[in-house]
Amino acid sequence: MTGFALDSRLERDSLFIADGPLSQLRLIDDSRFPWLILVPRVNDAAELIDLDGSQQRLLLAEINLAAQALRKLGRCDKINIGALGNIVRQLHVHVLARVEGDVAWPGPVWGHGTATPYSTTARAARIHELKTRLMA
Amino acid sequence: MTGFALDSRLERDSLFIADGPLSQLRLIDDSRFPWLILVPRVNDAAELIDLDGSQQRLLLAEINLAAQALRKLGRCDKINIGALGNIVRQLHVHVLARVEGDVAWPGPVWGHGTATPYSTTARAARIHELKTRLMA
Repeated sequence: MTGFALDSRLERDSLFIADGPLSQLRLIDDSRFPWLILVPRVNDAAELIDLDGSQQRLLLAEINLAAQALRKLGRCDKINIGALGNIVRQLHVHVLARVEGDVAWPGPVWGHGTATPYSTTARAARIHELKTRLMA
Repeated sequence: MTGFALDSRLERDSLFIADGPLSQLRLIDDSRFPWLILVPRVNDAAELIDLDGSQQRLLLAEINLAAQALRKLGRCDKINIGALGNIVRQLHVHVLARVEGDVAWPGPVWGHGTATPYSTTARAARIHELKTRLMA
């Protein structure tokens, strides 16, 4: 874990929520969607297949927890999970809640329009809600 | 496994390659991208978290195999993995190879333009290549 470096773009676009066994869990600062990312604290990993089996199983467990927390947060018609990395190479997995009729529905959120950052109050509230749901 | 029903849209848009331990592996009939989907033979699963732990681990192993086969197929700058399901509810996981400068780069492939079906010859060749890579 020593010397793990978070990509500067991920750091700018998202907010720290918690450290899981493998990954940093972060909230994407875009109030249009309840949108989490998991960033394994493994330097130089770009692909899922760069992780070994035990790391992959930890990540899978973290994806499950993130999805369950999102489902408890409010209306969720579909969970979207994605590992793309075409722009930011550092391995990160998106886990987000979709609602029928949201601004990108039924298309993917990636590359759709411009992020709407949370207000300071809404951001703190969302992070608090998520921490509560993750521990429930 | 009895009575597994493949969604009609997935059946129309993709071609059978092989049955894995959990999932049907299929090639999306779009020659713009080397693009596989894994469809777990589990009725009524829409989300990854609808699978139990052992099913998830099988799916994870299949994702690894699919990604490795794509990497052996030719140039691959990035693997994209996604489970969206906003349009087709039946759980299916996309695993595809991206090349810098491909027609959708660096955006996601989902919802990007219109599929370019393979020619009959190219389709057979691609499926043969994939079967060879999967067994290598």
